[in-house]
Amino acid sequence: MMEKVNISEKFSLFNEYWSPKIVGEVNDTHVKLAKLKGEFDWHHHEHEDEMFLVIKGKLLLKLRDQDIWLEEGEFFIVPKGVEHLPVAEKEVHVLFIEPKTTLNTGNQITERTVQNLPTI
Amino acid sequence: MMEKVNISEKFSLFNEYWSPKIVGEVNDTHVKLAKLKGEFDWHHHEHEDEMFLVIKGKLLLKLRDQDIWLEEGEFFIVPKGVEHLPVAEKEVHVLFIEPKTTLNTGNQITERTVQNLPTI
Repeated sequence: MMEKVNISEKFSLFNEYWSPKIVGEVNDTHVKLAKLKGEFDWHHHEHEDEMFLVIKGKLLLKLRDQDIWLEEGEFFIVPKGVEHLPVAEKEVHVLFIEPKTTLNTGNQITERTVQNLPTI
Repeated sequence: MMEKVNISEKFSLFNEYWSPKIVGEVNDTHVKLAKLKGEFDWHHHEHEDEMFLVIKGKLLLKLRDQDIWLEEGEFFIVPKGVEHLPVAEKEVHVLFIEPKTTLNTGNQITERTVQNLPTI
């Protein structure tokens, strides 16, 4: 990919929630965008750390022992093995940095699992 | 690291140019911040892709065959092996995503090489 990426522009290309899109790769790592709204499912990633960077809106990232509120320009890296639950009262735009092996629903396959992520 | 990171707050902690700071790790990948001003040196990274995300200001990323202008909220991933030259007419704040093995001056060791990056 030899083109620059404008993050807002990419977000304007889709409307589904909880459906990550790939917008870049850096060696073994993917850069993904997703729109979140509502509550996801508790899960963890056995082997992957997962970075949530809020681009727009306000995200509540619940851990079992801690509530983390992320606003625009803030990020949190959920370490591998740590259970988490993203909650978006209103629509939130998130940029993810995570290993290419990362599945959105982590340790469980549910109806919300997205297996083959599109690149946009 | 179980604390969230506010990117602007981290940028307020240092003033040097061309001196990347580590602000997070995602498996084998580092998240770094740097303030850039002026012109760097042409270099490439033999094995590492390097993502430049502009947080503040406007960055000119010169490749041998292309000039890429990056504004706030835009990123470019320089593929491994591709020569590049960052140029910042005015101060620019950049977030980098790159493998932990990445050296700022790439294939050459110069007086601008930073070997042991601090975590802030």
